Amino acid sequence: MAALSPLLLVTICFVNLCSGYSPNWDSLDSRPLPEWFDQSKIGIFIHWGVFSVPSFSGAFIWYAWKSFKDPAIVKFMSENYPPNFTYPDFAAQFTAEFYNPDKWAEIFKASGAKYVVLVTKHHDGFTNWPSKYSWNWNSMDVGPNRDLTGDLAAAVRKQKDMKFGVYHSLYEFYNPLYLQDKANNYSTQKFVKTKTMPELYELVNSYKPDLIWSDGAWEVDDTYWNSTSFLAWLYNSSPVKDTVVVNDRWGKNTPCKHGGYWNCDDRYNPRVLQKHKWENCMTLDKGSWGFRRPATYADYMSIEELLKTLAETISCGGNLLINVGPTHDGRIIPVFEERLRELGSWLDLNGEAIYSSVPWAHQNDTVTSGVWYTSRKSTNQTMVYAIVLNWPKNDQLVLGSPVVTPATKVELIGYPAKLSWKAKPDVKTGMVITIPPVSISTMVCKWAWVFRLSGLGN
Amino acid sequence: MAALSPLLLVTICFVNLCSGYSPNWDSLDSRPLPEWFDQSKIGIFIHWGVFSVPSFSGAFIWYAWKSFKDPAIVKFMSENYPPNFTYPDFAAQFTAEFYNPDKWAEIFKASGAKYVVLVTKHHDGFTNWPSKYSWNWNSMDVGPNRDLTGDLAAAVRKQKDMKFGVYHSLYEFYNPLYLQDKANNYSTQKFVKTKTMPELYELVNSYKPDLIWSDGAWEVDDTYWNSTSFLAWLYNSSPVKDTVVVNDRWGKNTPCKHGGYWNCDDRYNPRVLQKHKWENCMTLDKGSWGFRRPATYADYMSIEELLKTLAETISCGGNLLINVGPTHDGRIIPVFEERLRELGSWLDLNGEAIYSSVPWAHQNDTVTSGVWYTSRKSTNQTMVYAIVLNWPKNDQLVLGSPVVTPATKVELIGYPAKLSWKAKPDVKTGMVITIPPVSISTMVCKWAWVFRLSGLGN
Amino acid sequence: MAALSPLLLVTICFVNLCSGYSPNWDSLDSRPLPEWFDQSKIGIFIHWGVFSVPSFSGAFIWYAWKSFKDPAIVKFMSENYPPNFTYPDFAAQFTAEFYNPDKWAEIFKASGAKYVVLVTKHHDGFTNWPSKYSWNWNSMDVGPNRDLTGDLAAAVRKQKDMKFGVYHSLYEFYNPLYLQDKANNYSTQKFVKTKTMPELYELVNSYKPDLIWSDGAWEVDDTYWNSTSFLAWLYNSSPVKDTVVVNDRWGKNTPCKHGGYWNCDDRYNPRVLQKHKWENCMTLDKGSWGFRRPATYADYMSIEELLKTLAETISCGGNLLINVGPTHDGRIIPVFEERLRELGSWLDLNGEAIYSSVPWAHQNDTVTSGVWYTSRKSTNQTMVYAIVLNWPKNDQLVLGSPVVTPATKVELIGYPAKLSWKAKPDVKTGMVITIPPVSISTMVCKWAWVFRLSGLGN
Amino acid sequence: MAALSPLLLVTICFVNLCSGYSPNWDSLDSRPLPEWFDQSKIGIFIHWGVFSVPSFSGAFIWYAWKSFKDPAIVKFMSENYPPNFTYPDFAAQFTAEFYNPDKWAEIFKASGAKYVVLVTKHHDGFTNWPSKYSWNWNSMDVGPNRDLTGDLAAAVRKQKDMKFGVYHSLYEFYNPLYLQDKANNYSTQKFVKTKTMPELYELVNSYKPDLIWSDGAWEVDDTYWNSTSFLAWLYNSSPVKDTVVVNDRWGKNTPCKHGGYWNCDDRYNPRVLQKHKWENCMTLDKGSWGFRRPATYADYMSIEELLKTLAETISCGGNLLINVGPTHDGRIIPVFEERLRELGSWLDLNGEAIYSSVPWAHQNDTVTSGVWYTSRKSTNQTMVYAIVLNWPKNDQLVLGSPVVTPATKVELIGYPAKLSWKAKPDVKTGMVITIPPVSISTMVCKWAWVFRLSGLGN
Repeated sequence: MAALSPLLLVTICFVNLCSGYSPNWDSLDSRPLPEWFDQSKIGIFIHWGVFSVPSFSGAFIWYAWKSFKDPAIVKFMSENYPPNFTYPDFAAQFTAEFYNPDKWAEIFKASGAKYVVLVTKHHDGFTNWPSKYSWNWNSMDVGPNRDLTGDLAAAVRKQKDMKFGVYHSLYEFYNPLYLQDKANNYSTQKFVKTKTMPELYELVNSYKPDLIWSDGAWEVDDTYWNSTSFLAWLYNSSPVKDTVVVNDRWGKNTPCKHGGYWNCDDRYNPRVLQKHKWENCMTLDKGSWGFRRPATYADYMSIEELLKTLAETISCGGNLLINVGPTHDGRIIPVFEERLRELGSWLDLNGEAIYSSVPWAHQNDTVTSGVWYTSRKSTNQTMVYAIVLNWPKNDQLVLGSPVVTPATKVELIGYPAKLSWKAKPDVKTGMVITIPPVSISTMVCKWAWVFRLSGLGN
Repeated sequence: MAALSPLLLVTICFVNLCSGYSPNWDSLDSRPLPEWFDQSKIGIFIHWGVFSVPSFSGAFIWYAWKSFKDPAIVKFMSENYPPNFTYPDFAAQFTAEFYNPDKWAEIFKASGAKYVVLVTKHHDGFTNWPSKYSWNWNSMDVGPNRDLTGDLAAAVRKQKDMKFGVYHSLYEFYNPLYLQDKANNYSTQKFVKTKTMPELYELVNSYKPDLIWSDGAWEVDDTYWNSTSFLAWLYNSSPVKDTVVVNDRWGKNTPCKHGGYWNCDDRYNPRVLQKHKWENCMTLDKGSWGFRRPATYADYMSIEELLKTLAETISCGGNLLINVGPTHDGRIIPVFEERLRELGSWLDLNGEAIYSSVPWAHQNDTVTSGVWYTSRKSTNQTMVYAIVLNWPKNDQLVLGSPVVTPATKVELIGYPAKLSWKAKPDVKTGMVITIPPVSISTMVCKWAWVFRLSGLGN
Repeated sequence: MAALSPLLLVTICFVNLCSGYSPNWDSLDSRPLPEWFDQSKIGIFIHWGVFSVPSFSGAFIWYAWKSFKDPAIVKFMSENYPPNFTYPDFAAQFTAEFYNPDKWAEIFKASGAKYVVLVTKHHDGFTNWPSKYSWNWNSMDVGPNRDLTGDLAAAVRKQKDMKFGVYHSLYEFYNPLYLQDKANNYSTQKFVKTKTMPELYELVNSYKPDLIWSDGAWEVDDTYWNSTSFLAWLYNSSPVKDTVVVNDRWGKNTPCKHGGYWNCDDRYNPRVLQKHKWENCMTLDKGSWGFRRPATYADYMSIEELLKTLAETISCGGNLLINVGPTHDGRIIPVFEERLRELGSWLDLNGEAIYSSVPWAHQNDTVTSGVWYTSRKSTNQTMVYAIVLNWPKNDQLVLGSPVVTPATKVELIGYPAKLSWKAKPDVKTGMVITIPPVSISTMVCKWAWVFRLSGLGN
Repeated sequence: MAALSPLLLVTICFVNLCSGYSPNWDSLDSRPLPEWFDQSKIGIFIHWGVFSVPSFSGAFIWYAWKSFKDPAIVKFMSENYPPNFTYPDFAAQFTAEFYNPDKWAEIFKASGAKYVVLVTKHHDGFTNWPSKYSWNWNSMDVGPNRDLTGDLAAAVRKQKDMKFGVYHSLYEFYNPLYLQDKANNYSTQKFVKTKTMPELYELVNSYKPDLIWSDGAWEVDDTYWNSTSFLAWLYNSSPVKDTVVVNDRWGKNTPCKHGGYWNCDDRYNPRVLQKHKWENCMTLDKGSWGFRRPATYADYMSIEELLKTLAETISCGGNLLINVGPTHDGRIIPVFEERLRELGSWLDLNGEAIYSSVPWAHQNDTVTSGVWYTSRKSTNQTMVYAIVLNWPKNDQLVLGSPVVTPATKVELIGYPAKLSWKAKPDVKTGMVITIPPVSISTMVCKWAWVFRLSGLGN
């Protein structure tokens, strides 16, 4: 069947009334999310592309320069480039000479992340793989002269227990075919049929991604984008039909409504339990997805901020997708590597509270702020994990949410001694945990301490 | 009707059984060639594009480098560029900062040419206009940041009595959609339908060319290229339907067979009368169409060589299309300008033998080599022009072809005195013309002297 | 006197037998080191120059490439540059567009450093100021088009209580005048007289540095370099004669012997008390002085490593000069900024153990490793500071060096509670300090805890 | 003696009262000009350097841009380069990849020139050889990475009967040492002693030039430049002491007064006989010495203009130095090559009127304008050559200057037939030459016909 085009396959399927998902949301939304995604909890997001060449204001620089006429960018360009210099002129300078996918993969693995999502095409339309539909505007034809996507896919898959996903923007800022469809009030689909969808099929067939992180659908409903047809093919017939996970950005009308898991917005972090599996995509450079040269130390998340976000996200049923922006020459700068390795060292100790965890009855504590819960069920018992972002004052941790029983036990992960506790006086629930003297030399965890509670009542 | 797409127009036409040309060669070939073309005789060809950046071995450098692995090019690239440098990386250096279309048009006008044919897209697929179908691989998006085609069209049309034509390559060396169609044995037409034909329609609609110089059809028949559909639209419905002229490169099967006038091959110069209107396309740099930095003075045609080619071509019913290759920064170098202005000065004097001329009974003289004839009919008489490439030895010009009569008169264009002649002895036709002493100060013509013969017999 | 050249001044001085330092080491070495230097303790070193453009293997890349033929560099160059590319060709790419001297100065101030030493000319001879003696090989004529030195000097001096010094290499790898002098077995001094010394005088006169960090004298004795003449002028007649501090690299024969303070070697860190004031110059990127793109997180010193080095250095009477390598475009990358701000936060708390401290009777503890002492004397008493790099096991700190008295008091800086101690049993000196339970929320110091001891005996 | 510096040699010479030229003009001017120079008559001048990179307005672009603020240059720079781009930044782009000294030498030889003068250092101070005194501002260290001077010297000398000379500018627009000397009202000579004179000695010792074309002395007298010392060394002790020729630009006070031959001004062409040997230096691009991209065909001299200048110059005792400006990548563009080869073809025929000729009694004809005389003496007779720039009207050449005798004979070089003449009626001198019918096929000379007159009276 390899010779048949995706379109034909779908058609045949309809004609034959074959079983499988139909290209409508009712059907597509009924597909169970492959389990690996919820179990993985943490992924790495990578924004890399032509925008990494100016590396001035992130991945939207083209639009911010030409459409918003952002004065800072206009000034930067006029001070550093000849007047006629264009954004596509940057492509030849996207050299990637230090790109070492194995090294990247090792860092990502060390962070504790279980999946990697590479921006394979952002809104500038430049594909980080040799797309047939983006001739001379891809990483093989200009700049790196290399299949950035294929090389990273291979490197990530060499790591044990890591999955590889692709970010793909349906939308392209200035693609003239898109602009024409838009000018036609989306009554035409030239762009969809000759550029963005062919690329997406090509991407799936070429790299067999475990995850498709769709983006850029915000200007028009999914019917323009032909999203449901694509997903029906993806779920029924694609080489990744059984394992692939997708998000919810398939049309202006779909975020937080349809698709696989939900991203809703960028940096979506509701801090309350969600009924549908979701993912918080955020970035270590608080001001940008793509690498920015002007970013200073203060712009980067501290490990404390990162762990706080992790705790909030996992407790409420989300996954955390942590973004880094490599440089135009292919480096992940040390401050990114530092945060990722710090996270990895924390997870080495505390990972049981994160991976394959499920939300508990409570997400954050009812009494003490900065305490977030996760849980883990086994045949015999349920473990509850209280992730405590700030060390308790006077070494006494007051928790309002647990229902204690005589069988209740409390441990501080990484700390050898048993902790004593007593029920919170005068209330039905709650407990006061006393932490015995902690020598700094004994306490291996420096940030966000995890208390393991077992034997709780309902 | 502006809102209707070309495709729709053609369709409507079929449905309505409207009059006009049908998309088959019998019908299309029946269209009379608009008269301006034969009358014009001389055009300027311009090869300009990304290949003008390396300007090392002409317009085919990409193919010669990557497919032929031409050792000289491989060496040039390895000595002057980093190993990973690609051909598309050159585009950002196509700066065109000295491009002055009005100056170009003035030079072309001064050459005596009546039409200009710009390479708007060569086999590298780079469009010298902001094509919607060649995003970020066109002269507006990268490099010049300018509509090279539109600017030249406007400048040429500002000149009196000059027409503007476009060269367009159907074929693109490395377009992956073309390569895919080819791999499919041309059973698919993805490339034709999404790239090369949309561009051609766009080109016609945008710039309303007087001439379309099609190229690159050599690998496959016209049915793959959809050429007849295009030509039917062009002749029936396009904005240039009444005036446009096309050549014959619309499929592997069409050169010297179908289309408007015939180019047959590059530098096609049969030196015998042709039954069908044709054009000799040749280049002043004898070794290249695109600008080549290594070309030396000896590589450029002398004015004598150019006039010889002109005489041979016009005598046999052809037009002459003279190529120049501008530099990557937009200059027509002096040696090109010199030849063109020399040609113009010759035509200022001798233009009556060229423009609107028709082939005579003989093309070259039966006795003296290097003599080519043209003629011009008026109500009363026929003028015959003998273009004499080499000055006659001993100032006696022996012509074998003319049939003399008592009314026969001979003049040397640009020379004030009357010339005496006598019939060639012992033969039915022919004459011997004696040129009286010619002072060098009197003889305004320095190369290729034209003798005007009137009152000849049949 | 401004119109007189330095040479003249020196001459006049000799003629007049004026008082002051004589150009010999006995005299020059007799000058007391200005007090500010020993009090300052911590400086920032900045390696920035043309070598920051390739930023591949540090400041010696030219020599390592061309003289050592380091295979990694040869490979890097051949893979990323055309074959004929030269090191000086890099200069035009030294753009410095993000250079913000005020921002740099703010970071340096925040680190707790009291002086800044900028590389104004490294061994490549490129001057980071518009030197008259290095025409077209300086930061004003090519590349940044800016007086990098003057701009940083002004910014540093805007900060309260910061001094500005200049690194200057006498030696230049490939200066042909130097190579000629060398070939002449240093019997000639063309290089010294026309390039390196005029530059040094110019530097002093232009920027009035508080410190001159001389380098590159290692191939030949000071007599070749005319060092003593320069220093005599510097100490007697220069605009900074009263305040300037110099190091000891003034000839192959001078390190650790002559000059102001001693650097001896790079990263000189003897870990025993020195009789002469010295400075440990080291770099946060453990593998390079100049910025290196291939450096990963592991190549950068951790804050723990930095504080260990600081403690070892200050305890033994040294100053610590901490190097950072800015990028070719003028940035101090976040990992450098992070270390510097971490150091600054530590010094905000523990600075009393560092600034203006003096070595104590012991440098490191006789019993517990990883404990370094400093002290501070006031009219009434002597404070001794034990800098404890690793938190004591079981919260008991055993110190072998102090002689306790009944008046002995112990405090842990930043920790509110009083600490109890008892004499070490069975020995004349030493004490055992018990640290009461330390809540992590109470302990503000995360690394390298400082214990303040008062009332010790002799 | 190789180990002794030039300075020492001169000094020794004085001390020893050795014979030879003294460093004053009376002595230096007494040196006879080596004969080869007057015999050679025609040289090629080559302006090539960093200014060939912008190739916008010639060799003075730096000064015209920065000091004159020429609006066209300011506009060109701001439209095509980032704001901070400097003139020295151009150097890395002086690539010279097509530089082929043997090909250059072949073209120069074919032009009929007998010597070549290369600009080895223009006013920008950039040396086209690896000068020890211009480190990193020479063609070996940046840009071409090649000894342009040495390579051309070798190539020229491989040609039979060609000499190699060097243009050297004493002055440098923006050399800070020169500007300092100037600010000191030239009371100091730092620039002369450390840069410009050492370079000149180095140039002579390295390349042993047959000719030194000094320039740039116009702001101050020769005493500042130490010119007489240099010339005394050059004439007495240099490796070219017997053969070297110099011009007259050795100080503001010397042009048209002192030195070897005189240039007086650029394009100096007095059109009257000069008492002192002189040279007319002019350029084929009438508007520039360095290559200019904006130059059009009309800016280049025609062969007729060139031959007119040659005739005027040689007739009045001058040499002609014809300038070409190669491109930054090392090409001599075809229009230059064309003029040079046209000149060579003319000299192949008419060279006897030029080489080793001497001025005649008259320089231009007393009656007919556009006629210039040269002569050549042998033991028996004197040949007089009338170079006739315009073909005589009615084929009758009237010459007013010759005194005819019965033995007078007239030939037209390159024309086989004898010419008849008669004495001019009613005057003592003069003749009327009748040219018999000239067939264009017979007349091999197309421009500037030379009439050889013998047997004239006095």
